[in-house]
Amino acid sequence: MYSLGLDFGTNSVRAVILNLESGEETASAVCNYPSGTDGIILDEKDLYLARQNPYDYLICMEKALKDVLRKAKKDKTFSHEKVVGIGVDTTGSTPLPVDEKLVPLAFYKEFKNNKNAMAYLWKDHTGTDEAEEITEVARKERPEYLSKIGGAYSSEWFFSKLLHLIRTDRNVFDAMVSFIELCDYIPAVLGGKRCPDEVVRSICAAGHKAMYNDEWGGLPDEEFLCKIDKRFSGIKKKLYQKAYPAGEIAGYLCHNWAKRTGLPEGIPISVGAFDAHMGAVGAGVRPGVLVKVIGTSTCDMTVAPMGKRLKDIPGICGMVPHSIIPGFVGIEAGQSAVGDIFNWFVKMFAPSKLKDPHRYYARLAEKMRPGETGLIALDWHNGNRCILVDQKLTGLIVGFTLNTRPEEVYRALIEATGFGGRVIIERMEEYGVEIKEIVATGGIPDKNPLLMQIYADITGRTFKIAKSSQTCAVGAAIFGAVAGRGKGGFESVKEAQKKICRFKDVVYRPNKGNKKIYDKLYLIYKDLHNVFGTKTANKNLYYVMKDLLDIRQGVK
Amino acid sequence: MYSLGLDFGTNSVRAVILNLESGEETASAVCNYPSGTDGIILDEKDLYLARQNPYDYLICMEKALKDVLRKAKKDKTFSHEKVVGIGVDTTGSTPLPVDEKLVPLAFYKEFKNNKNAMAYLWKDHTGTDEAEEITEVARKERPEYLSKIGGAYSSEWFFSKLLHLIRTDRNVFDAMVSFIELCDYIPAVLGGKRCPDEVVRSICAAGHKAMYNDEWGGLPDEEFLCKIDKRFSGIKKKLYQKAYPAGEIAGYLCHNWAKRTGLPEGIPISVGAFDAHMGAVGAGVRPGVLVKVIGTSTCDMTVAPMGKRLKDIPGICGMVPHSIIPGFVGIEAGQSAVGDIFNWFVKMFAPSKLKDPHRYYARLAEKMRPGETGLIALDWHNGNRCILVDQKLTGLIVGFTLNTRPEEVYRALIEATGFGGRVIIERMEEYGVEIKEIVATGGIPDKNPLLMQIYADITGRTFKIAKSSQTCAVGAAIFGAVAGRGKGGFESVKEAQKKICRFKDVVYRPNKGNKKIYDKLYLIYKDLHNVFGTKTANKNLYYVMKDLLDIRQGVK
Repeated sequence: MYSLGLDFGTNSVRAVILNLESGEETASAVCNYPSGTDGIILDEKDLYLARQNPYDYLICMEKALKDVLRKAKKDKTFSHEKVVGIGVDTTGSTPLPVDEKLVPLAFYKEFKNNKNAMAYLWKDHTGTDEAEEITEVARKERPEYLSKIGGAYSSEWFFSKLLHLIRTDRNVFDAMVSFIELCDYIPAVLGGKRCPDEVVRSICAAGHKAMYNDEWGGLPDEEFLCKIDKRFSGIKKKLYQKAYPAGEIAGYLCHNWAKRTGLPEGIPISVGAFDAHMGAVGAGVRPGVLVKVIGTSTCDMTVAPMGKRLKDIPGICGMVPHSIIPGFVGIEAGQSAVGDIFNWFVKMFAPSKLKDPHRYYARLAEKMRPGETGLIALDWHNGNRCILVDQKLTGLIVGFTLNTRPEEVYRALIEATGFGGRVIIERMEEYGVEIKEIVATGGIPDKNPLLMQIYADITGRTFKIAKSSQTCAVGAAIFGAVAGRGKGGFESVKEAQKKICRFKDVVYRPNKGNKKIYDKLYLIYKDLHNVFGTKTANKNLYYVMKDLLDIRQGVK
Repeated sequence: MYSLGLDFGTNSVRAVILNLESGEETASAVCNYPSGTDGIILDEKDLYLARQNPYDYLICMEKALKDVLRKAKKDKTFSHEKVVGIGVDTTGSTPLPVDEKLVPLAFYKEFKNNKNAMAYLWKDHTGTDEAEEITEVARKERPEYLSKIGGAYSSEWFFSKLLHLIRTDRNVFDAMVSFIELCDYIPAVLGGKRCPDEVVRSICAAGHKAMYNDEWGGLPDEEFLCKIDKRFSGIKKKLYQKAYPAGEIAGYLCHNWAKRTGLPEGIPISVGAFDAHMGAVGAGVRPGVLVKVIGTSTCDMTVAPMGKRLKDIPGICGMVPHSIIPGFVGIEAGQSAVGDIFNWFVKMFAPSKLKDPHRYYARLAEKMRPGETGLIALDWHNGNRCILVDQKLTGLIVGFTLNTRPEEVYRALIEATGFGGRVIIERMEEYGVEIKEIVATGGIPDKNPLLMQIYADITGRTFKIAKSSQTCAVGAAIFGAVAGRGKGGFESVKEAQKKICRFKDVVYRPNKGNKKIYDKLYLIYKDLHNVFGTKTANKNLYYVMKDLLDIRQGVK
């Protein structure tokens, strides 16, 4: 038996076919989005804007499915009939406006090239002001809404984007019959759904990004929404009542997509979820284990038993029952930019003649000891997602001398993201969610052993690396297999993880000496973090430059 | 009539011949020091070390003198006999150890290649710890010493270097009969002096760098020096009793150097002074006018009438009677690194293929408005000379986003040095020394109109540029002409300045709109300055990143 996972990332869609007996990946295929810059529609006049053309999703999905099935045929035991289920993960919150036939408005001539009719990519921050207003009203009127999502509503989330759409493009809003998360749209398309009401919504998206919770009967009430903006009046008719966990069945492969791909009709399709959440499952998340998806940004995911009365954790992205693994509370945190910071540095400051600037700088930075750069940085180039939940923060570097070299800055930026990660872990533990071990996945862990060792040294925790480089797609396939339990899939996520999740041989263990130095630097990081990132910390920072020089002197 | 100026810079020596009737420069010549890196002996293991080979001074002086005289002959009215005087300026504090015959110890086989026997270049910071100790003892025992030199004794100064020599190389110290400033050594060499006692010491060097003041009878007393370190015992025998202002006669051209150069014996040689001080005179310094020598670092010089009871100004480099113009109190301040910061940035971060990276970045940065970078920086890459007097400070940049471009960083670094300059002006005015106008000179003003306009906008003051690009050498020649008053030179510095000092046509006037934005940014700069640079400022800096984003948004 096999299952199929579809992973809609920021720049491409990936398909993977998993052998449920061996646990191995039988085949995989990737297709890059053709539109915009690496699949992202940008706007020179508005740096906050990041949209996607919904055409890309469908074109690329078809291509990736055809490719992966063609490749899978090389395995002679594989046949289309053995696919027991399909799982889908996508970026999020990435909602798009659709009409009454579930057709994205961007597909219509009327809205062609109108960025407001496209999909609002997770990292679109045009709703920054709206997020602040939502947070403000919620703080006064519905504090319980915020307590599940870290204390502040983000510009990256569903209602900020929806409100921004309402305010900036009345034509699109009027034509829109629903605003649908990409992770709900794709299963609906595959399942041949013909109107928004037929779409099965994901509890992962709803709970983490749209303030959905069974405690208050689902989505936020309309009275609250209208206090934010009267134009929200009647909005709930355009949305949904109930959301479901991944692993439940969202639909069955429709005739159209069966024909397009050659798969048999009727394959169960799992309810969708976000890439990081399914990626966490693919990487082996369980209580006590934090999965850190390290790419352009990070998602830090763990789960906690539902029986235990968990306190709400301020400053993390969300705590949502069933959002990662059914039966557990899914806890999501993250850092707004990690790889993006290194990419920024390399793009802006590295000599263009370097073939692999990351590798070049990492090799030089590897030779340094902790503290040797004399620098410390705040990793807020794209704001701070956790634990400050503040888009309007920026990066800082302190400690420059006339001898500061680019590789030292590069190393300091890596360290900054490590400190940022430690802040999240400490916040979780402070509220009773213990983190014993970390599994890293995403694009960076394989490519950057220096970063992995720095993270282990800074956090004082062992880092394993998920064996698959496609944990999101694998996680999607796991949920496909769970949705296909009736056809020979798995009975539970736990059973599937046992069979499928593996780790690389290399393990990064904290070096005690390095940890000690990083503990000192972390105190500086925390002071800068609090003085620049919170309204309450008053501090004199005269010691910072002195300590950095002394620590550097001490390790040279 | 003509006079001759010799200017010993950080990397080269320059000679200029001035026509005293027309005020024009008849000829000039430069000779680069051949040793080390651009004339500076460095040490990979000790980044603080910066020494010079005294051979370079003599070899290059001879070459520059021969060159300039050869060139001057093209002017048919010139003849060697018409040179009425010679003036000398040098970097400082740049002392070197000499023996009883006034021969630099570095000339002896025994000390060849021994960096401790060489000249201690102004920017040698090996005496950082010693400077702190001197400051500490002076604060307790002789606060009056510090009140004339800005409240702290610098690692760049005479006694820090001497104490460091005593502690690190007993052989050199034992062989040393005197420790002589370069600006005293060169006139002595030209004058054929045969022992340290014959050397006429400069009040500029003594007063600004060696705590010399007539108020307490010259150099610091030995009891005080021994409280710093017992090894100072007997040191005053190796130093001097009295110092003299530039313009007085230090000696007359000796047979040896007359023969070497073809000049007649007996030409009066002015008492030496530092390059910035003579440069200020060459640029037209007078009460109300600040001369800003902008190069790798800056020297900010002005003069105040002696009659007026001046308050001591904390945090500036020095207030010394007669040190710039006889009869006035010379006031010196400065910034540890300006051009050095831009050079660092370009060297470390600019693509090597750029032919003129400064010009490239300046052109891009020119298109931006104040505040548009979203960045603010502290210009402390080489410590802070004024008004914090603290070598152990480092650079800081805040406001990075994923879109921050190199030219924005370049502009922010220029602005940071502008803010640093404004701090100095405000400190002077706070203590009653008014600054109405600024004359810029040094290597940068001509090359970087962007920087000049930014400085005018930040300080709200008009910037003129000295016409001569060699104000130091011109200033030296002015003092040569004053020393040669008996041979047809000038009776006073003021008379000489009237005849000789000129300005370029281009004048930078502050733009009111820009000034307004910079006033906002300056408040941020001052907060960062105080929180990181002083022990007393406790502050929350949450507003910093927000304000930078808002200001950027406002000017876009």
